[in-house]
Amino acid sequence: MKNTFGSGVSVTVFGESHGDAIGAVLDGMAPGIPVDPEFIAHQMDLRRSVGALSTARREPDRVRIVSGVFNGRTTGTPITFIIENSDTRSGDYGELAYKARPGHADFSAQMKYHGFQDFRGGGHFSGRITAGIVAAGAVAIGALREKNIRIATHILSCGGIFDRGFSDTDADMDKIGGLEFAVLDDERSEEMQAAIAAARQEGDSVGGRLETIVTGFPAGVGEPWFDTLEGVLSHALFSIPAVKGVEFGAGFGTADMRGSQCNDCFRSKDGVITADTNNNGGILGGISTGMPLLFRIAVKPTPSIFTEQQTVDMNTMENTTLQIKGRHDPAIVHRARVVADSITALVLCDQLALRFGTDWLRA
Amino acid sequence: MKNTFGSGVSVTVFGESHGDAIGAVLDGMAPGIPVDPEFIAHQMDLRRSVGALSTARREPDRVRIVSGVFNGRTTGTPITFIIENSDTRSGDYGELAYKARPGHADFSAQMKYHGFQDFRGGGHFSGRITAGIVAAGAVAIGALREKNIRIATHILSCGGIFDRGFSDTDADMDKIGGLEFAVLDDERSEEMQAAIAAARQEGDSVGGRLETIVTGFPAGVGEPWFDTLEGVLSHALFSIPAVKGVEFGAGFGTADMRGSQCNDCFRSKDGVITADTNNNGGILGGISTGMPLLFRIAVKPTPSIFTEQQTVDMNTMENTTLQIKGRHDPAIVHRARVVADSITALVLCDQLALRFGTDWLRA
Amino acid sequence: MKNTFGSGVSVTVFGESHGDAIGAVLDGMAPGIPVDPEFIAHQMDLRRSVGALSTARREPDRVRIVSGVFNGRTTGTPITFIIENSDTRSGDYGELAYKARPGHADFSAQMKYHGFQDFRGGGHFSGRITAGIVAAGAVAIGALREKNIRIATHILSCGGIFDRGFSDTDADMDKIGGLEFAVLDDERSEEMQAAIAAARQEGDSVGGRLETIVTGFPAGVGEPWFDTLEGVLSHALFSIPAVKGVEFGAGFGTADMRGSQCNDCFRSKDGVITADTNNNGGILGGISTGMPLLFRIAVKPTPSIFTEQQTVDMNTMENTTLQIKGRHDPAIVHRARVVADSITALVLCDQLALRFGTDWLRA
Amino acid sequence: MKNTFGSGVSVTVFGESHGDAIGAVLDGMAPGIPVDPEFIAHQMDLRRSVGALSTARREPDRVRIVSGVFNGRTTGTPITFIIENSDTRSGDYGELAYKARPGHADFSAQMKYHGFQDFRGGGHFSGRITAGIVAAGAVAIGALREKNIRIATHILSCGGIFDRGFSDTDADMDKIGGLEFAVLDDERSEEMQAAIAAARQEGDSVGGRLETIVTGFPAGVGEPWFDTLEGVLSHALFSIPAVKGVEFGAGFGTADMRGSQCNDCFRSKDGVITADTNNNGGILGGISTGMPLLFRIAVKPTPSIFTEQQTVDMNTMENTTLQIKGRHDPAIVHRARVVADSITALVLCDQLALRFGTDWLRA
Repeated sequence: MKNTFGSGVSVTVFGESHGDAIGAVLDGMAPGIPVDPEFIAHQMDLRRSVGALSTARREPDRVRIVSGVFNGRTTGTPITFIIENSDTRSGDYGELAYKARPGHADFSAQMKYHGFQDFRGGGHFSGRITAGIVAAGAVAIGALREKNIRIATHILSCGGIFDRGFSDTDADMDKIGGLEFAVLDDERSEEMQAAIAAARQEGDSVGGRLETIVTGFPAGVGEPWFDTLEGVLSHALFSIPAVKGVEFGAGFGTADMRGSQCNDCFRSKDGVITADTNNNGGILGGISTGMPLLFRIAVKPTPSIFTEQQTVDMNTMENTTLQIKGRHDPAIVHRARVVADSITALVLCDQLALRFGTDWLRA
Repeated sequence: MKNTFGSGVSVTVFGESHGDAIGAVLDGMAPGIPVDPEFIAHQMDLRRSVGALSTARREPDRVRIVSGVFNGRTTGTPITFIIENSDTRSGDYGELAYKARPGHADFSAQMKYHGFQDFRGGGHFSGRITAGIVAAGAVAIGALREKNIRIATHILSCGGIFDRGFSDTDADMDKIGGLEFAVLDDERSEEMQAAIAAARQEGDSVGGRLETIVTGFPAGVGEPWFDTLEGVLSHALFSIPAVKGVEFGAGFGTADMRGSQCNDCFRSKDGVITADTNNNGGILGGISTGMPLLFRIAVKPTPSIFTEQQTVDMNTMENTTLQIKGRHDPAIVHRARVVADSITALVLCDQLALRFGTDWLRA
Repeated sequence: MKNTFGSGVSVTVFGESHGDAIGAVLDGMAPGIPVDPEFIAHQMDLRRSVGALSTARREPDRVRIVSGVFNGRTTGTPITFIIENSDTRSGDYGELAYKARPGHADFSAQMKYHGFQDFRGGGHFSGRITAGIVAAGAVAIGALREKNIRIATHILSCGGIFDRGFSDTDADMDKIGGLEFAVLDDERSEEMQAAIAAARQEGDSVGGRLETIVTGFPAGVGEPWFDTLEGVLSHALFSIPAVKGVEFGAGFGTADMRGSQCNDCFRSKDGVITADTNNNGGILGGISTGMPLLFRIAVKPTPSIFTEQQTVDMNTMENTTLQIKGRHDPAIVHRARVVADSITALVLCDQLALRFGTDWLRA
Repeated sequence: MKNTFGSGVSVTVFGESHGDAIGAVLDGMAPGIPVDPEFIAHQMDLRRSVGALSTARREPDRVRIVSGVFNGRTTGTPITFIIENSDTRSGDYGELAYKARPGHADFSAQMKYHGFQDFRGGGHFSGRITAGIVAAGAVAIGALREKNIRIATHILSCGGIFDRGFSDTDADMDKIGGLEFAVLDDERSEEMQAAIAAARQEGDSVGGRLETIVTGFPAGVGEPWFDTLEGVLSHALFSIPAVKGVEFGAGFGTADMRGSQCNDCFRSKDGVITADTNNNGGILGGISTGMPLLFRIAVKPTPSIFTEQQTVDMNTMENTTLQIKGRHDPAIVHRARVVADSITALVLCDQLALRFGTDWLRA
């Protein structure tokens, strides 16, 4: 299976940056779940971003649902989201048709598709394809919310500036839910945005880290081998363009700990089993413990920069140079945040359906 | 699919630490691949480890292949590896039957299996189950080697002490191939082993990092969405017990880079497309570029430690304390190394079969 | 996976009879395959049928391809086919909203979707959904033809009247390729059409059998257990609405044979291994032999008939009667024929991709 | 996935007729299900058959469960069944090593495995491999029985002699449950056995039909497209060696019916929705209706016969003749019956787990 993820609840993405339309098919959602077009539109806006930080296309990203929703609720059959491409500029691509942009998929795509790929604007590799994931994810996020499962992602770092971690989780989730640039500490938020602006001025770009928390997720979900909760989440999270690392709980930090520091000692509080630390990110043996799921992803800096770069001509396979022009974001970490929420929601809906059956998510 | 990974080439693991036998079924390997029992035995020995560093069970881990090999070569049908459990000590488990060991899967298993799980020695969650993966992986490693695809993993860090990275790749691979404690820099190797010994003396444990390199892997393998090469590798790598993070190329380090630093600029050298840096770990857009695959995993410290820990009684759900006794490793990062090689080989065989067909790996 | 079939080459269908649009996503086709809009339109027309035999909706079934095709060829990424629903009549459904039509999926859908399903015109269960399969299948049929693999299906029986079997295969394939009512023997064709007309006059309906042949399919494709070629073909063929049986070669007839009659004795002719009989339908041990694939499916009579029928009210679960009105076909076997060709092509492309790799089908 | 079937509950088979051992891995069964070694042994005996009708190997088919069962109940982790091959006679295969037996998989296996397959006694294609399916199926049958879901299969025809169909279902199920030669009508049973004996005397073989009924299966299980209940059942049933056709309800007979005959008109009786006929075999739109599942499979005559047959030499690809010797059954339909029950149980457990979650089957 190539552009499809999940088995109980699955999502299939399609489309090219400058093709006719992009979208997604979401299958396996329980019947009877309310679908809120306004929430979908809100999520789409978070993905597009705006203002000084992004040079996103002017397209409104209007989502058309052509199947699977009846009288405002899911039917249980495939939900198809279509987003037309209007602002496509497919005219002259010039050297981008044959010069491999460093850090982009142009060269590896050429090796896989032998030149038949739609190279315009990154084609099927474009970050724009995440719009379908966000539309599908909005339905999944809504379904989870009905079961009191909440997901939130903040920008843990951007351009080397670090936000604080989650502390008062509910309040933190409320706060960043309403923010377009999702940083917990307002001062750090301004510094990060300044770092992005500085990178833009220099024709360069910056990367960052996203940290995701999930509360209310039941214990006992996931598998001991292969389909560990970490395994299935990371599998999907690496589809967010530019992600080069995924870690759970204390993640790479656990490598430098002693066992006595790293172990989360179970405590029974008011009938709930929990622990004072969460170094394992709510997952032990691949299975959820009932504590919050916590993970971080590394987002590399946008590969489209405006200084001349060395590369190869894919027709002649000879060395050449490339100068990228046009509109490009100096950072995508703030836009990737809603994609992280969406993919997380889709994976968790799949896991819940496999564990508790297809009706469990029904409101 | 629960305990199975892969579709073109797949592996299924089974068994419990103190059950009758453990093992694996490897399906989809091309017919005609030589199977070398000595190499399998060698890999099994690397996983068991010995001497002062480990208190491994005394079992020889003799692998019996009961199907799928005929006249010393794969037949193309499922290859089944059986490893009998002889040294099992299933007598008195005492409080371990109902007290959840911190950092272990006891509690999450209880939530999933409702008390029917075989709790003895970690049961199906035991690191011992990796023996089946290593046996299957040995066949996969052998098959890849015939196609000049080499895999090597070194201990990048242990107990806070760091090895150097790969430099002269072929020589480095040769060196660590023969080492039981796979560190490139001999001095660091001794320091790491001293750190493990120190942790043991204190009844504590240490974690570490593993770094894996793959050379000779062809360009154009992997998918743009979901089944990205990073996605499928990380999915499987998180099955190595205690792994809490996976990163590719410069990984989390890319988050702090500028685009101008992070982009690997393509160069044509002697008809081969390569780059001076490998910050993307040989993968762009989810697809291999032909450069070495490079990734790191974080291995948390062994959760079995010998100081008293707080925990809960899973029968009464009340707070209690736990004192672990018996034989346990103060570190597993050096033993996990051969598991990382094995899982990597299995995933790559699967990807190659899906891309180039079931016969491609045939010697 | 619910509405998706295949792993190397997969198809996902979506839509409801009276929703906004229906369609399909075809993923995994090799890059560089020519896509012929006229052939797709031709296949769509065969599925719609016309004239006295059918009361198909007046919609032109115009297929819009919104992704995966660039410069007239497949890109290797998902191909999305959208067919708008224009002639939908979603006004008053009256008793059809709560009375279960016998022979239809209304009742089983109610048990699965709890009343949230789009019941209008059969919703997601409508035969109209096969339009997406036919569009995707047209690309697959085209790809196979480039490799000299041909598929043809004739109406073996309709209303109890039987066509002759395939004899001069190439000529037979040529003949029925151009026919809207695909019968080899012209006299039988007229008798069958008369039987359909008679059923219509009585407000009743008739069933039939379809027989499919595939020539040029290579030997050595399929798996010994579970993913036998018979298994994967039948799995998909049972998705054709109204199909209640699938048989290969002499099929159920083999049950009454002696082994000495049933065995196809291999003969070497001009360097090709073949046999004088094909009782096994070109498949032995689940794997293709290189002889033509041959199978038949049973299509039950259309369940929409115009006599009063007993049924239950799904709201009250009490007995009641139902009188169906409106436009409905007295037979669908002639329209199902192109669906059989399409599903066969999709399954075989998947099998070939798994066996020989993703590039094999490339023209 | 090759030798594996199912996703919620899956089974993987392995082994060769004359290899070391054969077996199966059953994964995904709910924890806490009782495992009864005596029932497994009983099912194994039904598969082996005995006496005048079969020349089965003398092996006792002792099943060793090496994982996944603890204190007599399933743990929820993979259950592995191992059956050693003791009576293997792997000495001299003579011409069977290179002459393709008509009706067997020798030639298609050669095309797939290039001569590396274990050809001895049919290798991985041997009917003996069904022993692993029967062992796994016994656990599945037991689990379903706890939920009042019963499965029974009778020999509907053998050698052209037909048994009556199911009438008083519970009594019929009770009767054939205890029979080694599962025929409802005792007279027909004797005639069938005489037909088998006659075929044996002539060095020939006979085929037959099996009819399976499942009672107590809940409504609302199955998918509208692709993973229809008919689709998934037939997919698996075609793995029973020698099966060439599968039909549901009135099956191929529906093709000759009028709609007014074929429609099963729903009736409400004592709060249960049912119908006087079951022409649809308990499945509409791919989804169960709550009525008994009913289907039939065609089993071709055993291909091993003792008259000289024409064939090809696979080394030279030239015409030759073949004379099969040794022990072979003149019919397998009576032995296949328990395999049909087993595969049905495994498929239904998978479907129930996907629909209602992994715990539903728990006793």
